[in-house]
Amino acid sequence: MDFKSIFKVLALIGMAVGAFFATEIPVAIYYEEPVDKLMLFLTIFFLINAGIFFILKNHKVDLKIRESILSVNLLWILLGIGGGIPLWLYTYVSPASAFFEAVSGFTTTGATVYSDIESLPHFILFHRSLMHWMGGMGIIVLGVGLLSMINPSGSLSLFKAESTGIQIEKLRPKIKDTALSLWGIYLGLTILDMLLLKFLGMNWFDALNHAFSTLSTGGFSTKNDSLGGFHSDAIIWVTTVFMLLAGINFLAHLRLLYRDFSGYKSEEVRWYLIVFFVLSIFLTLTHEIDDSAQLWFSATHSFFTVASVMTTTGFASTNYGVWGHPAIALIFLAMLVGGNAGSTAGGVKVIRYVVIIKTLFAELKRILHPRALIAVYVDGNKLKENVIASTFGFFILYIFTNVLLSLYLYGRGFDAMTSISGALAIVGNIGPGFAQVGPADNFGFFSDIDKIILSIGMIIGRLECYTVYVLLSLSFWKKF
Amino acid sequence: MDFKSIFKVLALIGMAVGAFFATEIPVAIYYEEPVDKLMLFLTIFFLINAGIFFILKNHKVDLKIRESILSVNLLWILLGIGGGIPLWLYTYVSPASAFFEAVSGFTTTGATVYSDIESLPHFILFHRSLMHWMGGMGIIVLGVGLLSMINPSGSLSLFKAESTGIQIEKLRPKIKDTALSLWGIYLGLTILDMLLLKFLGMNWFDALNHAFSTLSTGGFSTKNDSLGGFHSDAIIWVTTVFMLLAGINFLAHLRLLYRDFSGYKSEEVRWYLIVFFVLSIFLTLTHEIDDSAQLWFSATHSFFTVASVMTTTGFASTNYGVWGHPAIALIFLAMLVGGNAGSTAGGVKVIRYVVIIKTLFAELKRILHPRALIAVYVDGNKLKENVIASTFGFFILYIFTNVLLSLYLYGRGFDAMTSISGALAIVGNIGPGFAQVGPADNFGFFSDIDKIILSIGMIIGRLECYTVYVLLSLSFWKKF
Ligand SMILES: [K+]
Ligand SMILES: [K+]
Repeated sequence: MDFKSIFKVLALIGMAVGAFFATEIPVAIYYEEPVDKLMLFLTIFFLINAGIFFILKNHKVDLKIRESILSVNLLWILLGIGGGIPLWLYTYVSPASAFFEAVSGFTTTGATVYSDIESLPHFILFHRSLMHWMGGMGIIVLGVGLLSMINPSGSLSLFKAESTGIQIEKLRPKIKDTALSLWGIYLGLTILDMLLLKFLGMNWFDALNHAFSTLSTGGFSTKNDSLGGFHSDAIIWVTTVFMLLAGINFLAHLRLLYRDFSGYKSEEVRWYLIVFFVLSIFLTLTHEIDDSAQLWFSATHSFFTVASVMTTTGFASTNYGVWGHPAIALIFLAMLVGGNAGSTAGGVKVIRYVVIIKTLFAELKRILHPRALIAVYVDGNKLKENVIASTFGFFILYIFTNVLLSLYLYGRGFDAMTSISGALAIVGNIGPGFAQVGPADNFGFFSDIDKIILSIGMIIGRLECYTVYVLLSLSFWKKF
Repeated sequence: MDFKSIFKVLALIGMAVGAFFATEIPVAIYYEEPVDKLMLFLTIFFLINAGIFFILKNHKVDLKIRESILSVNLLWILLGIGGGIPLWLYTYVSPASAFFEAVSGFTTTGATVYSDIESLPHFILFHRSLMHWMGGMGIIVLGVGLLSMINPSGSLSLFKAESTGIQIEKLRPKIKDTALSLWGIYLGLTILDMLLLKFLGMNWFDALNHAFSTLSTGGFSTKNDSLGGFHSDAIIWVTTVFMLLAGINFLAHLRLLYRDFSGYKSEEVRWYLIVFFVLSIFLTLTHEIDDSAQLWFSATHSFFTVASVMTTTGFASTNYGVWGHPAIALIFLAMLVGGNAGSTAGGVKVIRYVVIIKTLFAELKRILHPRALIAVYVDGNKLKENVIASTFGFFILYIFTNVLLSLYLYGRGFDAMTSISGALAIVGNIGPGFAQVGPADNFGFFSDIDKIILSIGMIIGRLECYTVYVLLSLSFWKKF
């Protein structure tokens, strides 16, 4: 294992993270908030990273598969520690709580330990949203290269089809350029969202933070009542649209720059929108019947809630946790879906359901025609065996993770709904679940050990299971 | 579709079922219970089946794959109707409740609509246990041939390995003979269990009924307090052992007749016993700590409960639904396991977990060594691709079924624990779950529509998903 390469890469990322964190200093100064400890921390943080980088400056970085996997795992733990320290310094929560909040930030989960968000200093609120935005950026960039190498099922719609070669290559000559373009789109959409939110009545600070939270499908807000705190239907609808955009494969957006709409015609985007509209309409009707509200009111909050949960953002426009059982069953279904591969969304993701359901139908057909060769096609491309195997494997690892985490929480004494929806909300990087972890609640009441375990759950979900579970394989640790 | 063959086979099975049901008449006469309606029903039932058989007596039965699948599905619905009519005639429940109870009987689920079982006539109690016993027999016999053809993942440990040919053929020359031998073992174990239960203090009637219920892993009892109603630790331990025997692949028992112990050394039996002992010991300890009971008391009820739940029998020696959260989490885990393939147990079954977990580890290895060919072996035989695909497919269909049924129940207004454990208990053919469907409760409070849907859930579980879901495939209905 080439630890020097690992440390050098981590130090490099650490310096970049430190540079982003440095933007919190002007925010704190503007709002006349105490900034001494932050500056001290950032100085030490920068010196450690720069020091490691300097020591290893002549080492040629060569990350093979095992080094890459270990780097990614270590990175998320270090991000949790580095992002947690300012929270621990300024908000007097336990180290485990600070770690949980930072992991929740960087994994774009958006589950919080704070009950009174509005009492936090501005620069801490900004710190939380910034972690989301950086996490989302990291996932988009990592997703193009590293993660899709480890788990081909996630790369399905990134690289149009393995069997026909990496088609994205035709679009842009180098992966590095692609990553840069994706980042440009991410930045552009963030700015557009911010301007619209400002125009619709938010102040600059709230607009920026919510744009960060929205495009990263993160879910941290600056208000205790989340998006509902702005009492504006226009803001709710604009955010609905931007959450949906953030949940779409960013390569589709990238193609749009070249006036190529084909990205939006992929089976994944089509099913994503179909599921979104079907669930939203059903939820609207259910809400109409159960709570006899105005149609506009029901539609606004139903479309927003489905978008928020399906894209794994986790904003709330209202406390949907108190809607009736049929509504909660529908929202629960949305929790299981997730966004697109190649987006900032977490969860299982639509493309995997497409692969799984098509493969299952092929299996059923095979029972009837045992000798026939039945291939599975997505977007006109035949799926390779290893992609199908990886997709099924991912899904089962995802289920195992959720079952074990649910049983852990239940065994700790929480009720069934809290345990199960909590596990799904954490591993799916959604944020809020139901019952004790509902949209109007927070994760502050969990013990420190619970918070550490939930943090690991967020990382497992964010890294799409394989990247973490591969550490359990004995062959990973052979031949150091 | 050759409907004549289908009807002829169903009529033949119908006559056999009628012959078994006829044994209820002497039971009713012995206990001086009114028998007129039963005799009338059995006469009509016999005449209909005999009539259909007579009309088609010159038709040569030729069940191809589609006819087999349709026959099996129709059979379970007809069994629900035929087995339900006596309940409807004598216990004044709704037709849907009677259908539910009969499906629960034949699928060996053991979920009941009756709250006061002890008030039922003896011959009705016997009718319920008899349905279990016939259902268990059917599964063992069907499992050898038909079902393993449809779903190779279930046949894994029946036919030692597909790649090396059907090894069971060496043991006994014909599948028909094998089926007969398996039935002999089933009968022999039932008689042995009955004699032991009688010896330990039950009367003949209770001993026979519980032997039927135990060997079929059914779970219907003649007592409101289930096995706990006999207040005998010896009966509890003997039943623990016989439930475990019923949950083991019957081909292992068959080999024992030839003094061949190798069946018990299979990976499935080994893991089955390991999981049983580990869960039982943990449950004992948990129960010790939570309820500070006597060690013998804790161990007796813990080992019994794990055996009951894991083998999907569903007996209760005590109301384990009121044990603490950690204990319930452990029992919940046992609910997910199931027995062996080739046994009367339902659920996912141990062999599938063995295949899935080994394949997942191979996947993880493949990430590290992308070019290596990594095969998965069970009992020294390399697994074929189609067996792995079928196993993963089964597991995901099983999950989908449970998620949809849980969400349906939750949407109907039941709490999360009732909905989820209820779905698992139904689809896994276990019987009791937790909360409103706990071991001390019953399914009587569900609406008629709920009961029909739950009945379909039991059939889907019993027929291992594929056999039912293949009806959803368009190609099933082509070319009638
Ligand atoms: K989120
Ligand atoms: K059962």
